[in-house]
Parts: sequence; C-alpha cells; structure tokens
Amino acid sequence: MNRLKLTISYDGTTFSGWQIQPNGISIQETIEKALTTIFKRPIRIIGAGRTDAGVHALGQVAHFEVEDEVDLLRLKYSLNGLLPPEIRIHNIESVPTDFHAQRKALSKIYHYNLWLDSTDDPFLTRYHYHFRRKMSQELLQEAAKHFIGQHDFASFTNVGSSAKTTVRHIYRLDVVEQRGGLRLEFEGNGFLYKMVRNITGTLLEVATFKKSLDDLPLLFAAKERQKAPATAPARGLFLIKVNY
Amino acid sequence: MNRLKLTISYDGTTFSGWQIQPNGISIQETIEKALTTIFKRPIRIIGAGRTDAGVHALGQVAHFEVEDEVDLLRLKYSLNGLLPPEIRIHNIESVPTDFHAQRKALSKIYHYNLWLDSTDDPFLTRYHYHFRRKMSQELLQEAAKHFIGQHDFASFTNVGSSAKTTVRHIYRLDVVEQRGGLRLEFEGNGFLYKMVRNITGTLLEVATFKKSLDDLPLLFAAKERQKAPATAPARGLFLIKVNY
Repeated sequence: MNRLKLTISYDGTTFSGWQIQPNGISIQETIEKALTTIFKRPIRIIGAGRTDAGVHALGQVAHFEVEDEVDLLRLKYSLNGLLPPEIRIHNIESVPTDFHAQRKALSKIYHYNLWLDSTDDPFLTRYHYHFRRKMSQELLQEAAKHFIGQHDFASFTNVGSSAKTTVRHIYRLDVVEQRGGLRLEFEGNGFLYKMVRNITGTLLEVATFKKSLDDLPLLFAAKERQKAPATAPARGLFLIKVNY
Repeated sequence: MNRLKLTISYDGTTFSGWQIQPNGISIQETIEKALTTIFKRPIRIIGAGRTDAGVHALGQVAHFEVEDEVDLLRLKYSLNGLLPPEIRIHNIESVPTDFHAQRKALSKIYHYNLWLDSTDDPFLTRYHYHFRRKMSQELLQEAAKHFIGQHDFASFTNVGSSAKTTVRHIYRLDVVEQRGGLRLEFEGNGFLYKMVRNITGTLLEVATFKKSLDDLPLLFAAKERQKAPATAPARGLFLIKVNY
C-alpha cells in the first residue's frame, strides 16, 4: 500500500464545506470524484480539518491510499486538470502508512480576516468579514489573551461536534494589522466545530463594548453555547496550515 | 450645476463590461441605476475608459452632474449601500464643470497579470491569465520595448473602435516580477479597443518563440488586426489609474 498526503488550497465560497453533505457540493467529494476518475476505482480521502461551508483553506491536508506505484508530479497535474479552479493541489507526497491527516496533526493554524475600512475591497470581499462598527483594538487584544492556553471551550462550540472532549489548547492568538483591517491568527492543538468563528464573535463583542473582559471567565464557566455571542461569518476564515 | 467625479473599483468577472450592452449587465448601468434611485431622476455617467467584459478596475473614473448640493460622504455611503459588493466607490469629489472623465485624461495605467507558476492560486485565478507555456522573460522584455513611444497601433485594435485615429503614445511598458509570475505595466495617453490585450498576446508570442523580434516592425507596418496574434484573456487586465 502507498499512502499519499495532499496539500490543498481552496476558495470555499461556493462549496458546502469540506465534508460530504446531503445538500450542496463538498470539497472532499469533488477531490474524491477526480481521484476516482484517475484511479478508476472509488477513492476515499481523510482531511485534517472539516472546514464549514464558505470557509477557505491555504494549507488543508488530506490522505488516501493507493495500491499502485504513482508518478506524483503527473498525478498532481492530472488532479489539477480535473478539479475546478477553486480547488488546487499544491503538493503530493508519499508518507509512512501510520500517517493520518487528522489524528497525527500536532497543531493547526487558522486566520480570521476582519476588514475595518469603511469602503470594502471588491477583490477581497469574499475573503474577509467587513466589520462596520467602531471597535477598540486594545480591548480586542486584551480579550484575546483570555483564550490562550488550555481551556474547556464548551461555550464556544456548536452542537454537531463529534469530539469526545471540549478541552483544547490554544498556543497563540495574535492580533495582526494588515491592509484594511486586522487578522486574528489562531494556533492550537485542535479546534472544535465553529470554535474559531465563535471565539471571533466573542472578541468582537468585547471590542465593541457589548461584553466586558470580566464576562469572559463567566462565559467559559457556563459551558453552554447559548451564553456566548454570535458566530462570525465563514467568509473571513482560512485554514492556513496543519503541522505534523 | 454640480459636476461630481467618482473613483471606482470593480471585479469585472460577472459583468458585460463598462459600457451598456444589449446582453448582460454593465458596470455603467449598475452605477446609473443606483444614482437614479438616490436622486430620483435618470442619471447618466461618463467613464474614462470602456473596459471590456471581464476586465477589472482599481481606479476607474466617471463623472456626472446633479443640480442639488450634495453631502459627498453620505452619497458615497448610500451608493456603496445600493451597489453590489463587486463594485465599490472609493471617492467622490466636486470638480469644475469643464472636467470630463474621458476627454481630460492625460494618461491611463493598465496592468496585465500573468501567472506562470504551474499550480494556480484559487484566490487569484479570476485576476490573472494562467500562462502554462515555457517562455523567455528576456524576449518578453525586448519585445515590450518595440511598443514604447508614439506609434500607429492599427494592427493592435479590434474593429468596433470608434476612435478617429489609431496613433497612440505609450510612455511606459514595464515587465515587473510578482508572486507567481509577472505583471505588465502599461502607461499611455490612451488605449484603443482591446489594445492592451492585443499587445499582451503579441508579447507572449515573441516570448514563446512563435514570432521573432524582427516580425514586430512588420506587424506595425501591416496596420491590420488580422496580421497580429490573438488577444490575451480579459481576466488578467486591470485599469489601475487615470491621470488628469
């Protein structure tokens, strides 16, 4: 057996997310269909993270197995030839058979793009959340610190998560200035269903004085999604990198 | 009377071009419709350059007249509120009544983006031409020099141009490296219908050894569109700036 690792970028705007869904076309099934065409038998792939509908990726990772010896460069060209331009395979490499895209991930990096300028950029509008309210960047920075470290993130995940525990470790949550606004950089050992977008929604509530910094420990303690603020839109979120 | 100057950016992917067309929705009519809604009477705008279907703009300019005194910042917000996110008004200013977006333009800057990397970028694919053939950047540079200066560009414009003369002056045609490929920067006193894309197509033929540098003077002398190579795709072209 020959286990192969794919590194993938995609514009998630028109897809129903990574995972196969009853409605809409998922990124996973689009790639599986192309691989099935190439290998002339059903291929299943396993992705590192199940990005939601509308979420993008620069460095999603997936693995699958083939019995044949494969010319990797040729496979990459064939795959990119069959896939729509919204999905690109950047790298294919042979990995040991104990490699697992999801289980062997040591950390994942997500970025959330906030556009704060009053006028949007038509070339980036699908890749950020145009946030029009006045906000305090200092409060955003202060609020972000509360999420760093090991915590039970039960209040910040939506039902539908299949995870056994809601404890996760966020190594880094940086607020970085970029043209037109800010980028929130999350790195952690794993993220629950909608966790990055729920944390982002909460940070924005603090930054706009709707929640105070003192509310944050209470939100964590509640361990209930209903207590925490709304989810930030999918369009601003990118899965940047998966580290193994 | 109060003459107003708009500075506009747009993602041209889904539009039939700047100018009103029998088929498809043009950028001009989309902006006119929004202005007509705001001023409650028909408004016509005049643009600096009639970009084709699929061509983008960072700094298109247009003017129109209103009888009323206008709060410019409020007008900008109202317009952007009515327009689709693919079109953004960046600036509105009051100008003298002899200002004319098209006739008073001293020079225009267009950029053409070429993606040369074998793997496309799904976030930029609508904004460049993914050119897959091997090419000589030195030949591209040499060929570009032939187009600088005052020339009769009759061989490089398509029928449908309403211009009285086909003589134009290109002040600058720079080949600039950027991530994934190259950018051709054109600055001139004016550009004929499809002229930038036709010149780009010709430069690529020279860079891929299909035409020689010696063919270029003959192409200019022919003064016939049929003699010159194919038009480069619209997706790579941006109207960057209009100087007055």
